[in-house]
Amino acid sequence: MKSNKPLILVTNDDGVTAPGIRHLIKIMKEFGEVVVVAPDSPQSGMGHAITVSNNLYCDKISTTGSDVLEYSCSGTPVDCVKIATQSILKRKPDLCVSGINHGSNSSINVIYSGTMSAAVEAGTVGIPAVGFSLLDYAMDANFEPTTKYVKQIVDYMLHNELAKDTVLNVNFPKLTSKDIKGIKVCRQAKARWEENYDKRQNPQGRDYYWLTGEFINEDAGEDTDEWALKQGYVSVVPVQFDLTAHQQIEDLKDLNFEH
Amino acid sequence: MKSNKPLILVTNDDGVTAPGIRHLIKIMKEFGEVVVVAPDSPQSGMGHAITVSNNLYCDKISTTGSDVLEYSCSGTPVDCVKIATQSILKRKPDLCVSGINHGSNSSINVIYSGTMSAAVEAGTVGIPAVGFSLLDYAMDANFEPTTKYVKQIVDYMLHNELAKDTVLNVNFPKLTSKDIKGIKVCRQAKARWEENYDKRQNPQGRDYYWLTGEFINEDAGEDTDEWALKQGYVSVVPVQFDLTAHQQIEDLKDLNFEH
Repeated sequence: MKSNKPLILVTNDDGVTAPGIRHLIKIMKEFGEVVVVAPDSPQSGMGHAITVSNNLYCDKISTTGSDVLEYSCSGTPVDCVKIATQSILKRKPDLCVSGINHGSNSSINVIYSGTMSAAVEAGTVGIPAVGFSLLDYAMDANFEPTTKYVKQIVDYMLHNELAKDTVLNVNFPKLTSKDIKGIKVCRQAKARWEENYDKRQNPQGRDYYWLTGEFINEDAGEDTDEWALKQGYVSVVPVQFDLTAHQQIEDLKDLNFEH
Repeated sequence: MKSNKPLILVTNDDGVTAPGIRHLIKIMKEFGEVVVVAPDSPQSGMGHAITVSNNLYCDKISTTGSDVLEYSCSGTPVDCVKIATQSILKRKPDLCVSGINHGSNSSINVIYSGTMSAAVEAGTVGIPAVGFSLLDYAMDANFEPTTKYVKQIVDYMLHNELAKDTVLNVNFPKLTSKDIKGIKVCRQAKARWEENYDKRQNPQGRDYYWLTGEFINEDAGEDTDEWALKQGYVSVVPVQFDLTAHQQIEDLKDLNFEH
């Protein structure tokens, strides 16, 4: 019987004990057989990093009374997806869900995001995948309002085929259930980070820096994720990993050169 | 006088002492004022990772007799670009060059690549940028055959405006000068990695894993970077960081939902 249920891989970048992934696991159990492979420590901002020069640990962890297989991995979110699909899962999962992230992964944040990189990695090997993020960095963030929409999106993904080589980037506004207006499919806003490094001295007198920065949205479009989130919608952006700027190939023809 | 010369930021992911970046610095000195900000250790496979939970060191290093300012940074390639533009350079650079990487960053490798992520990061803040990679992982790889093409591409970039929000991903075949056929502007091949983790036991009896894998090119197109490289061309792919799969927004309209 069990094998007829969808197999769902759950991961994240805040670490296997984070409240966001705990909330997601609880929801996913209603949809199928759940296997969790997530980092043993916070991996925010790890982007699509993989562990190439170090070994990885990946241990089964026992959560008393749980019917869910869980693994804690010493690597990045992308490592978790790779090791799950190659070494842990007995068949290709029907879905990979990543998150729910504590903090935004909208607009340009998608490229820094471990949460979204895990989803993208699953996408590169043909697994339908989605990353969920809540615009609240707090460890005690309220994930309850996300439940209804996570269910709606997962149900859609299990019953419809996404376009090939596309995964979903879902962000939730920090609002109560009654204030969330619905779901909007949108494009990634054009935005950037303006850094402002905080320079300090260590006790030995050596300078060091902390990364701090300001998020700058340069995009006034009303079809972007930033706009949708500001209006109180859940934003859904289809994300691709063919990074080719196809329309530029023709423009660059001056570079073509043959002996 | 000096300020009339183009300001060129040089970085990489193999670390500031790697032969690939040394070769690139030598070439760049012919084009302008060069500032190097590169990782103090190898950062291959770091993708678009940034350092958020740890502090960074970034020290001026003295290379005797050199007229080039060089900094060694404890962070990732993306950290190097961020700290260079915000804290080290006195003005916005005219160009950011990353590499020359020891190893391929063609096709799907672009998403794992620290070399390319550094270029993409520069692109996000409006700096023309290019990543160079040689299909030879060896530390004693021969970078001489790349010189002519690096010059051609850098000269083009300093005299032409690339499309907004586009950076270049340049890969060199492992060939002698006389065997390289020229330059081809192409698209990223559709390819994937099939992992094969090497499972071992540490001296304490705990299992650990090493990432190994096989690169699988699923794309027979004769307009791809993989094809061009196999034919003996230098491949140039215009790369974007708007990851939106624009053509899918309409297809996903069933997900749009309003109260």
